[in-house]
Amino acid sequence: MLSMIERGDDDAREIGRMAYPRSGRGYTVGLTGAPGAGKSTLTSAAIAHLRSLELEIAVLAIDPSSPFTGGAILGDRVRMQDHATDPGVFIRSMATRGHLGGLSLATPEAVRALDAIGRHWILVETVGVGQVEVEVAGKADTTVVVVNPGWGDSVQANKAGLMEIADIFVINKADRKGVDETRRDLTQMLDLSDLPHESWRPPIIATVGSTGEGVTDLWDAVLEHRAYAEEWGLLAERREFRLREELREIVAQRLGRRARQICTGERWDALTDEVVAHSTDPWSAADEMLAGVDA
Amino acid sequence: MLSMIERGDDDAREIGRMAYPRSGRGYTVGLTGAPGAGKSTLTSAAIAHLRSLELEIAVLAIDPSSPFTGGAILGDRVRMQDHATDPGVFIRSMATRGHLGGLSLATPEAVRALDAIGRHWILVETVGVGQVEVEVAGKADTTVVVVNPGWGDSVQANKAGLMEIADIFVINKADRKGVDETRRDLTQMLDLSDLPHESWRPPIIATVGSTGEGVTDLWDAVLEHRAYAEEWGLLAERREFRLREELREIVAQRLGRRARQICTGERWDALTDEVVAHSTDPWSAADEMLAGVDA
Repeated sequence: MLSMIERGDDDAREIGRMAYPRSGRGYTVGLTGAPGAGKSTLTSAAIAHLRSLELEIAVLAIDPSSPFTGGAILGDRVRMQDHATDPGVFIRSMATRGHLGGLSLATPEAVRALDAIGRHWILVETVGVGQVEVEVAGKADTTVVVVNPGWGDSVQANKAGLMEIADIFVINKADRKGVDETRRDLTQMLDLSDLPHESWRPPIIATVGSTGEGVTDLWDAVLEHRAYAEEWGLLAERREFRLREELREIVAQRLGRRARQICTGERWDALTDEVVAHSTDPWSAADEMLAGVDA
Repeated sequence: MLSMIERGDDDAREIGRMAYPRSGRGYTVGLTGAPGAGKSTLTSAAIAHLRSLELEIAVLAIDPSSPFTGGAILGDRVRMQDHATDPGVFIRSMATRGHLGGLSLATPEAVRALDAIGRHWILVETVGVGQVEVEVAGKADTTVVVVNPGWGDSVQANKAGLMEIADIFVINKADRKGVDETRRDLTQMLDLSDLPHESWRPPIIATVGSTGEGVTDLWDAVLEHRAYAEEWGLLAERREFRLREELREIVAQRLGRRARQICTGERWDALTDEVVAHSTDPWSAADEMLAGVDA
């Protein structure tokens, strides 16, 4: 199913239609942070914790630049392979170069497919802190931003974006020095920023992914945020917002495809020839091509 | 007229329709290069040369990031102000934040407007060597890429893009040391690159914008390239290609606008409510909204 979704063809749409009414019980936790922040190790530790609670989970590793396709586990996710033989854990990297809508459409489709087959905890891990990754990670129900002691320099570029999407901050590799300073930095930034949801203030959790230290605290924070988001209607509001955005994106995608259709074929060639010959102008030609489209 | 084109509203379209059949005699020369390469000074020297030939000219200074609007001459273009009182020279900076199609649609519209009112030499100077600037500069009839002695480091990022669009290379500030090395570098790169047009090899001209040295050579090279491009059908081919691209862009723009229209209003709200309530899925909702559009 995920391979079909990656390809983004008609099969993907059919899967979407089937999965949609069957989805809604799954809960997504997004993890993002600079490369090297230890997200995979942390995710692996989180998986171990969740398995100890006997939860069945799915992990989507999103890497827009990844050359992988067809469900290969990313090469450097050695730690995750600890769980490769556990049927209660489904791990999949997503490459979406075939999907016209890219990650922004493929990710929610993949999440719904996993949700529909009964994986009710879905971790979505993005590899970098670029625009796309931050966007995808920010579309989770609870978003965890992973930084390291002395994070300031490494993610300067997208600090504002990360502040905006974080429901929880994790200072991973907290066995290194500089944890207190980083906590102070984050606190200060939280004090200065307009928090998007007045009453939820992102907690700052210190973890050591490689030993599992702090992972229970992290999970407790996720559960706390979930309870908060459910109680105050924030979850419903977010999901509604995301759905509206997705629908808008689907419409834009289809019109884009329509544009490409319009700009080929005999009629198009004839009209462009007229424009080139200056016997009509580009706007009139566009009017004519778009006559059936009302645009 | 240019202000209307910048705004990109219905008036702009009307101007486009009027200008189109009246245009076609104008010739555009694009100038691009890294900030600090001395393009304005060189342009000013070129203006002086063209005025000495009694040519009437227009200069469009394109700066995608410029906060200027309404025809202000960029603050640092002091040299160009030498020509500010000469009615044979029209200088205008373009800011196109209001134009939905951005520079890629506003620039050819502006060029055609200037062409239609009888400015048959139009210099299009772009400020940086970013993707957008290179694209705009590459859409001129003759494109001049301005570098400095020791250019290698400053434009590393987009060297390939610049190589591809250059019809003429200028080593400006040629009174500094390193001219020979730079000429050797350029020659080597030209030897290695697949020149887009087998038989035209971009000449390398050394200039000193501040003294006007070499500007006559530069202009002669422009004239030579023009003659070549006209004789071998390259000019017609390029213009045709550009027009087809522009038409495609207009269609894409309009469909984009249509998408924004579709995604508002009562019917849209009702349908998204249904999706949110899970009583329909996003793809069926999109189908319904796009029913009249064939997308």
